Amino acid sequence: MARIKKAVVLLSGGLDSTTVLYWAKSKKRKVHALIFSYGQKHSKEVKKAIKIAKVSHTPYTVMRIHLPWGGSSLIEKNKKIPKGRTKRDSIPTTYVPARNTIFLSYAFSFCEAKNFSEILIGANARDFSGYPDCRPFFYKNFNKLLKVAGVKKIKVKAPLLKKTKSQIVKLALKLKAPLHLTWSCYRGGKKPCGRCDACLLRAKGFREAGISDPALK
Amino acid sequence: MARIKKAVVLLSGGLDSTTVLYWAKSKKRKVHALIFSYGQKHSKEVKKAIKIAKVSHTPYTVMRIHLPWGGSSLIEKNKKIPKGRTKRDSIPTTYVPARNTIFLSYAFSFCEAKNFSEILIGANARDFSGYPDCRPFFYKNFNKLLKVAGVKKIKVKAPLLKKTKSQIVKLALKLKAPLHLTWSCYRGGKKPCGRCDACLLRAKGFREAGISDPALK
Repeated sequence: MARIKKAVVLLSGGLDSTTVLYWAKSKKRKVHALIFSYGQKHSKEVKKAIKIAKVSHTPYTVMRIHLPWGGSSLIEKNKKIPKGRTKRDSIPTTYVPARNTIFLSYAFSFCEAKNFSEILIGANARDFSGYPDCRPFFYKNFNKLLKVAGVKKIKVKAPLLKKTKSQIVKLALKLKAPLHLTWSCYRGGKKPCGRCDACLLRAKGFREAGISDPALK
Repeated sequence: MARIKKAVVLLSGGLDSTTVLYWAKSKKRKVHALIFSYGQKHSKEVKKAIKIAKVSHTPYTVMRIHLPWGGSSLIEKNKKIPKGRTKRDSIPTTYVPARNTIFLSYAFSFCEAKNFSEILIGANARDFSGYPDCRPFFYKNFNKLLKVAGVKKIKVKAPLLKKTKSQIVKLALKLKAPLHLTWSCYRGGKKPCGRCDACLLRAKGFREAGISDPALK
């Protein structure tokens, strides 16, 4: 009998990471979710992530971290979150310096301490905001780092890396992920703003999949 | 005129990182120190690090981070810190999973946000405890990661990596580093215990350099 793989899922409460969580469950992984509260302007996505961990019966840890130097409109009060899509080949102000590197480092620490062998992340490099730490090279090099950084055999996987947003929507539906609970919007209003890059990318995905977004009902 | 290089120094309050701080100053770097409180059993080294930052007029940030999964005798209450030197080719229980990866990730975030171009760390792979994240390959691969992980040109340097402890002691003296303020002991007693791996390595360095340790006076 094959040994059950133990995987840490980085769960943000958005469409992509929730899909990865359900993908991991469909692949019979034993899953632990890490949810990061890193000083976002709103706590909505963290609350949604906790809710998703609960409805999926996934044990989870909320990590509260602090980046006092800021550097992003997602965490600095006096920096405005931009409207509209990211311009081609530019890095938007919503980029949080080293965010995925920090998240993966904690996940790596968890895996070393708890004998988990896999880190799963919902990064996507097709319909995305252009963040450098969402590109394939980043994950390739992080895996090279993991080969020498610790004492256990641990790998990062980004199963959605090359999928379009509509492919992700379709996969989420197939896996029965609770899409109505997911939150992608950079703002923390009652309803998603519909104008930030995250909202626009999500809308594109649902539109191209020919499905209406259950989180907007 | 050459532009002044801005460097983050990871300052633990020990012999090695203090030497790196003074090395950076001798090389005319503009320095900011990052001091990590990561749940160590004692707060002594953090206090010493703050003191060293102050006497050297180095701006600093204390980062309080939490690794709830433990995995090391330095942070888990019911795990004993071992006496004596690490056995050859073994990893001692004092190894903190992913510690340097996490520290460097935060330093990388700082550099991206604050336009710093260098991360300096006191890692040493000669007279050391055998931690995987102190070996040359780790830094080589971390630099490869940095090439694709962010938007700025940032490098990690470990200027003491290949030095012996006695060479480090001699360098510290030459740079007039405040060795009397440094704390290497894994325990937080009034005086260094003299029996843990960190104390033994330090003692070896001073003995081989033919100098008495000013922190023991």
